[in-house]
Amino acid sequence: MIHSAFDQWRSDVVARVNSGLTDCLPDESVIPKTLHQAMHYAIKSPGKRIRGLIACASGDLFAGNIAQVIHGAVAIELIHAYSLVHDDLPSMDDDDLRRGQPTVHAAYDEATALLVGDALQPLAYNVLANQSNKLSSETRLLQIDLLSAASGSNGMVGGQAIDLAQIGTTMSQSELELMHSKKTGALFTASAEIGAICGPEYNQLFEKQLKLYAQQIGLGFQVVDDILDAVSSTEILGKSAGKDLRDNKPTYVTLLGLKRAKQVANELAELAEQTLRELPRRGGYLSDIASLIFNRDY
Amino acid sequence: MIHSAFDQWRSDVVARVNSGLTDCLPDESVIPKTLHQAMHYAIKSPGKRIRGLIACASGDLFAGNIAQVIHGAVAIELIHAYSLVHDDLPSMDDDDLRRGQPTVHAAYDEATALLVGDALQPLAYNVLANQSNKLSSETRLLQIDLLSAASGSNGMVGGQAIDLAQIGTTMSQSELELMHSKKTGALFTASAEIGAICGPEYNQLFEKQLKLYAQQIGLGFQVVDDILDAVSSTEILGKSAGKDLRDNKPTYVTLLGLKRAKQVANELAELAEQTLRELPRRGGYLSDIASLIFNRDY
Repeated sequence: MIHSAFDQWRSDVVARVNSGLTDCLPDESVIPKTLHQAMHYAIKSPGKRIRGLIACASGDLFAGNIAQVIHGAVAIELIHAYSLVHDDLPSMDDDDLRRGQPTVHAAYDEATALLVGDALQPLAYNVLANQSNKLSSETRLLQIDLLSAASGSNGMVGGQAIDLAQIGTTMSQSELELMHSKKTGALFTASAEIGAICGPEYNQLFEKQLKLYAQQIGLGFQVVDDILDAVSSTEILGKSAGKDLRDNKPTYVTLLGLKRAKQVANELAELAEQTLRELPRRGGYLSDIASLIFNRDY
Repeated sequence: MIHSAFDQWRSDVVARVNSGLTDCLPDESVIPKTLHQAMHYAIKSPGKRIRGLIACASGDLFAGNIAQVIHGAVAIELIHAYSLVHDDLPSMDDDDLRRGQPTVHAAYDEATALLVGDALQPLAYNVLANQSNKLSSETRLLQIDLLSAASGSNGMVGGQAIDLAQIGTTMSQSELELMHSKKTGALFTASAEIGAICGPEYNQLFEKQLKLYAQQIGLGFQVVDDILDAVSSTEILGKSAGKDLRDNKPTYVTLLGLKRAKQVANELAELAEQTLRELPRRGGYLSDIASLIFNRDY
């Protein structure tokens, strides 16, 4: 079985992110034990670590040292992990299954899931403030600035609020895009920037294309998600399939139909490749990550 | 009517904290509007801003510039505000009244309240990373380190988890103290440190006494809270009185009885004053804040 350079790099990065996540959490035996066990349960959910990969590919593209970039990747994945735990809560998407396993509130209880999310969030900023392989203080503050802006009410949480408000209503394609640009795009963009600023070869001339790429794959990620939700089985997805339709949520498939949604995904894949041509090494591993996102089946 | 120097200083600081809170939030007209309105609603709840006052008094004690110290005070109050919104949720304390007004989930809905808390939290770190009157990058990183550690699973959220786990059980006085040292003490201690490190006259020789003071008044705050919950009316408290007993929560009053609980409060007030004697100016406004905490009736 032949592994590409990307496959090897990806497997190394995912292992580093997973170790980083485990290492920054208090041990499961530390009081309060149930909370710490549930935090470990949340971060051990077998995710694809796409955001961490984006940060590391972006750092690699500009000659960043992986031992320094990894802190940013871990912090981003902590924010993503907390957001999944809260999104699954009964008052939100009310989902009992995530990545083939019971969600945190299903495995523990609702209060514990709330507190798990509330505790994972500050840990992300703690990881950025306290780095073992230190970036300059200015770079670390900029990482904290980018991550906190992307995950707040003008970013990820704002997108989630728009999502909730739109259940049962009709959205235009541009409204759907605004929602996803916040809900997913903001953290994808922050991931690319948080990694890039670790690299000595990065400069602001690349910023526009880097952010554009991140928005394109962020949107692509959601279109593919909507397609998979409509066509896949719960078994393959590892989460409840067909749920968007049952929940009466506007998606690219309900808005455009399956055929046109697939076309939109292909168009976004094309656009992302075009954007990457204006970056060094045609985006390096960022290009492989785009392929991963557009060709995934779960 | 004569105002003491402390009263004037306090009124100025509270006004600065309140402006800082309003200014760092996106305007209520920014999309998603309901989320931003609910965030403003949450921070406008008429709190005593004790944690912000501790930070500013601590900064003042070591000759910190209030225009620089205030960022830390605002960040701490954002964390405190988010914690109240989440603590009041149905899956937690399930309280509809806070400071005489409907809680966020009662005024809006549960999902909005969850997202308000989730969005206030990163804003705190954004305020510390982006300061208009800048402290050194190293000081800002240390503030972020202190705040994130104090509000996570080994601090405030950990205390909340212990609290939830103990409902209906019997706790010893030392277990109750451990819970409160995390639930309230951790953020009080971080407040004192976050303010102190802004001051050029601060050095680590003062750290031990400063932290001890913060733990003593943090614990005192809880003992007084338990006493008030047992003896006051809902009208005076602005929150549901007698709720601890109905919720079968261990408190200083249920554990020690009212008379002994009052003695413990007096002892803590004495200890805090003793601790302050080893700090410059006998603690300056930190001493007035201790009086405020031990003599409050709501």
